[in-house]
Amino acid sequence: MSLAPEFKVVFQPSGRMVYVLADTTVFEAAARAGLMLQTPCGGRGSCGKCRVRVVAGDVAPSAACRQFFSAAELQQGMRLGCQVRLVSDAVIDVPAASLYESAAARILTDGQAHDLHVQAMVEKTWVQLAAPTMADPAADLMRLERVLGPLRIKLSLLRQLPAKLRANNYGGTAVVCNGDLLDFEPGDTTSSSFGVAFDLGTTTIVAVLLDLNSGAEIGVAATMNPQVNNGDDVISRICAARDSQANITAMQDAVIQACNALIRQLSRDHGVQPRHIYEVTIAGNTTMQHLFCGITPAALGEMPFAPAFSRALVLWACEAGIRLEVNEHARLYVFPNIGGFIGGDTVAGILATGLWDCKDTVLLVDIGTNGEIALLHQGKISTASAAAGPAFEGARIVNGMRATSGAIEKVVFNGNDLQMNVIGNALPIGMCGTALIDLVAELLRLEVIDCTGRIVTADEVPQLPEAIRQRLHEADAQVNVLLCSAADSGTGEALYLYQKDVRELQLASGAIRAGINIMLSRLNLTADDLDSVLLAGGFGNFIRRRNACRIGLLPALPLARIRFVGNAASAGAKAALVSRKLRAIAEQVATAAEHVDLSMDAEFQMEFAMAMMFPQQ
Amino acid sequence: MSLAPEFKVVFQPSGRMVYVLADTTVFEAAARAGLMLQTPCGGRGSCGKCRVRVVAGDVAPSAACRQFFSAAELQQGMRLGCQVRLVSDAVIDVPAASLYESAAARILTDGQAHDLHVQAMVEKTWVQLAAPTMADPAADLMRLERVLGPLRIKLSLLRQLPAKLRANNYGGTAVVCNGDLLDFEPGDTTSSSFGVAFDLGTTTIVAVLLDLNSGAEIGVAATMNPQVNNGDDVISRICAARDSQANITAMQDAVIQACNALIRQLSRDHGVQPRHIYEVTIAGNTTMQHLFCGITPAALGEMPFAPAFSRALVLWACEAGIRLEVNEHARLYVFPNIGGFIGGDTVAGILATGLWDCKDTVLLVDIGTNGEIALLHQGKISTASAAAGPAFEGARIVNGMRATSGAIEKVVFNGNDLQMNVIGNALPIGMCGTALIDLVAELLRLEVIDCTGRIVTADEVPQLPEAIRQRLHEADAQVNVLLCSAADSGTGEALYLYQKDVRELQLASGAIRAGINIMLSRLNLTADDLDSVLLAGGFGNFIRRRNACRIGLLPALPLARIRFVGNAASAGAKAALVSRKLRAIAEQVATAAEHVDLSMDAEFQMEFAMAMMFPQQ
Repeated sequence: MSLAPEFKVVFQPSGRMVYVLADTTVFEAAARAGLMLQTPCGGRGSCGKCRVRVVAGDVAPSAACRQFFSAAELQQGMRLGCQVRLVSDAVIDVPAASLYESAAARILTDGQAHDLHVQAMVEKTWVQLAAPTMADPAADLMRLERVLGPLRIKLSLLRQLPAKLRANNYGGTAVVCNGDLLDFEPGDTTSSSFGVAFDLGTTTIVAVLLDLNSGAEIGVAATMNPQVNNGDDVISRICAARDSQANITAMQDAVIQACNALIRQLSRDHGVQPRHIYEVTIAGNTTMQHLFCGITPAALGEMPFAPAFSRALVLWACEAGIRLEVNEHARLYVFPNIGGFIGGDTVAGILATGLWDCKDTVLLVDIGTNGEIALLHQGKISTASAAAGPAFEGARIVNGMRATSGAIEKVVFNGNDLQMNVIGNALPIGMCGTALIDLVAELLRLEVIDCTGRIVTADEVPQLPEAIRQRLHEADAQVNVLLCSAADSGTGEALYLYQKDVRELQLASGAIRAGINIMLSRLNLTADDLDSVLLAGGFGNFIRRRNACRIGLLPALPLARIRFVGNAASAGAKAALVSRKLRAIAEQVATAAEHVDLSMDAEFQMEFAMAMMFPQQ
Repeated sequence: MSLAPEFKVVFQPSGRMVYVLADTTVFEAAARAGLMLQTPCGGRGSCGKCRVRVVAGDVAPSAACRQFFSAAELQQGMRLGCQVRLVSDAVIDVPAASLYESAAARILTDGQAHDLHVQAMVEKTWVQLAAPTMADPAADLMRLERVLGPLRIKLSLLRQLPAKLRANNYGGTAVVCNGDLLDFEPGDTTSSSFGVAFDLGTTTIVAVLLDLNSGAEIGVAATMNPQVNNGDDVISRICAARDSQANITAMQDAVIQACNALIRQLSRDHGVQPRHIYEVTIAGNTTMQHLFCGITPAALGEMPFAPAFSRALVLWACEAGIRLEVNEHARLYVFPNIGGFIGGDTVAGILATGLWDCKDTVLLVDIGTNGEIALLHQGKISTASAAAGPAFEGARIVNGMRATSGAIEKVVFNGNDLQMNVIGNALPIGMCGTALIDLVAELLRLEVIDCTGRIVTADEVPQLPEAIRQRLHEADAQVNVLLCSAADSGTGEALYLYQKDVRELQLASGAIRAGINIMLSRLNLTADDLDSVLLAGGFGNFIRRRNACRIGLLPALPLARIRFVGNAASAGAKAALVSRKLRAIAEQVATAAEHVDLSMDAEFQMEFAMAMMFPQQ
């Protein structure tokens, strides 16, 4: 039986729970739970940033832990998350300071260098206006403008203004966003100012409720993007949009409804009134942003992939077709796109990771069906999009699946056999992309797969451990690798890695790596010149860096240089909501970034072919 | 029989027809027909600006005509409109150059001095954009902005943009209004650019269709303001608005529907497509402008009469509650108000008459239920509103009525008796305000009314012509003046001027004259300091200046200094549509104008009491 026992780990204060294999690091378990611990040292235990406290369970301190913590602290359960491994069920407390995901908050906290501080576009000001008199019968709007300066105002609000002003004898709280009057509320409500930042993914929508006064995160909620009914990937959605205007409307309605459900959930859970939500930011890929706005993405489905808009859109949260359930006069900021396949999510990621103000040479990679690559060098950012295909999502892999319950998500060779971890403590029904990378990397190390991607026969590797040898099954002149017998499988059928699955992985990995290589060589750089590689996005944050390097998806760099940056798109959407300076920078980034069309590069085919080969080691 | 024979006069090219008394000047007949001839000389026949051509009928030339026209021209029928009198039916051709009503056009024509020329806010530009290529896959919107500069764009238009651009291979006509993209049309449609200027009166709505390229007037249409169902005057409408939100909505809907009917009529009559109408301007009094926007005017009904807005509103022609049937992305400009009772119509009038750039001391008066007074002195404008009450509209006058069919509109003493002119060549059913002024002025001259306003008995005026003496009927210790016997009346009952009617006129006239006096004395001026008095509006343009002076409504000045300026509000609404410079000036005028609250003036009651006395002569 190849399925190892799993341990249940609960993280506090979020209450998030995951099941992991024995010997999984706390860092990795936390990542699995969506909590990204800070590891600027690359997980070598030298920086001390990933400190956590073991509340329950048996988590032995490492040597590095003893360097960072006193005996008393160790006694209290203090540990370095990247250094300690889980060998039992555990409850672990994660201090906010140890989390990477507060990238926006960190930028804002460390902002002295950038002259950044929390300054939302939305400003609430309590004012006591003089009531009109015969000596001063000036108009209601003018009385406000005398205090607040010139204002733009929607007719629908102007219509309410006389009553709103008179309701409280011309005292109240004015809500202004970049010169637009959004509301006038009775009493002093300046302390209740909220916004919602959306990371609008093709698969998942993440909403963060923020306090616009402090910049503090109030709560997070996520849901599936209901547009999956129109296809899993961006191309399917584009095709659906091309089919009919009704599909566009339906997809827009679906995503707006999903966003509203998240807003309702966050409002309810955190006691915030929706009418106190005055601004919403949206960061998604170009197609998602088009569909959110009800704009056809049809042109993104054919050469030359020109979007309808690229600069940021500043809209009303209740503008044609959009009916977000927030303050009726709230504003909506849609991130600028760089190009048809480099969208607002990448801009948000660049914003959140601070690439716009960094002197290093840095690669930011969001691995997915569409791999987005941003390379910072000498202060200039170039971007490219690599069409990896859906292998990382488990599609086109015979026993592949998304990273949901029942998916094998991790594979390790323990010296004798392969051990696997399944999401949701269930019987396995397939494997997701991270497991595919793990598996192929381990098989490369075992020389079961050669550098061309061929799965060899057992005879070709004499020293192979017996358990592994048992897994190699020949059929139709090809060798497949048994993951799980029919008896152990949730489907009742055996699960295999097939030769063609390896080919799919080669295509996906090769596309991204070729993109990276071309981006580097255009600037006469090599991988060694990279000070860091930042992995962003829902998939990138779950891969094992060592294995990603082994299959050649990432350049073989010291792991300390490869860092997870969590959901950078969400962090960027948050940053744009609470910092008007960062919002201005988003626009500058989108305008200044050079977009490289990989398919137009003369070297692409050659690079692609070469990158499909697995590295020799 | 006191009703004199009438002559039918038809004016070309408009085809407007009126009936007038014998000896009526062509100038006056034209005014009656809504055509305001230019008379900068005050009607003395010295400027030669009011030239017309008599096409049919017997209109003898005056001595002044012989000075201005050659024998051949006289033979062709050329006459000075202010100098010649009608003694038969006639057909008269009025050249556009002789019309005062093209005030805006005149400003624009003579505009060298003001550096003014036709430059509408709306600009149409034919562009041929490069279609996207792999080498340049920039967004659709960016392609437009590269050519046109930064644009604001409504989401509803952005949604249409990809199709609009692709429909004609990225060639077409962009419509931009002050940085807002309003449309993108296939082909070169730059020659089709139209706007509609509305004079939104309490009683009448006048719409003018303008060519935004040339500034030329395409057509005019007018209709009753359907809000009269909620009362004839502003106060009634305010009361209705206070009663319920439903009334506000109903009044807004009604006026929007009336405006749409005018737009449809103008479009149809002149072959203009409504989608080629890109901007609409609205000039009305403060209450009318509030109701048009669906904003409650309730506060205008009570001290201190503070409006909801005073600065200009720049809205969408299809914004909440407003659904003008023009281009779906068209813009709407609502004139700035100066105060609760000095609205956008006065600002428009100041704009059209050029007061904003005049060195003289000038009084602009719009006589109506609410008299609006603007005084220009040393380049500064002060304004006031005088509550005249409805006497000029015929209300509260026993046999009073509006100036519609059946109304006696003019009364003259022909040396023996009173002659009267009735609108619509019908039997009289009442008298309108102009006739009331005429009648009282003539009776003052005949000493039938004394300076206190008392109608004397026949015995007190021994030399009275017998016909007049016959008209004085005593009843209840008061004397009334018979206008028309029961046999000659359209109602079957005799029509009288009653003593109380004279009192109502004294109140109305006194209120306005007191306002004028206070405005003058605040600046240490007397009436003699006035270089001109300009009479604007639907009522002011029909009064006989000499009679208005006789009853004291206007100061006794040489008639040459008292000029009719036609529908100045409409002219100003047109000016704001075709000249962005004049539009900017409208805002400056509204801001700079000083509003004087007459009721706050310590002298008002005394001035009012004195102004109610008729001048001695």
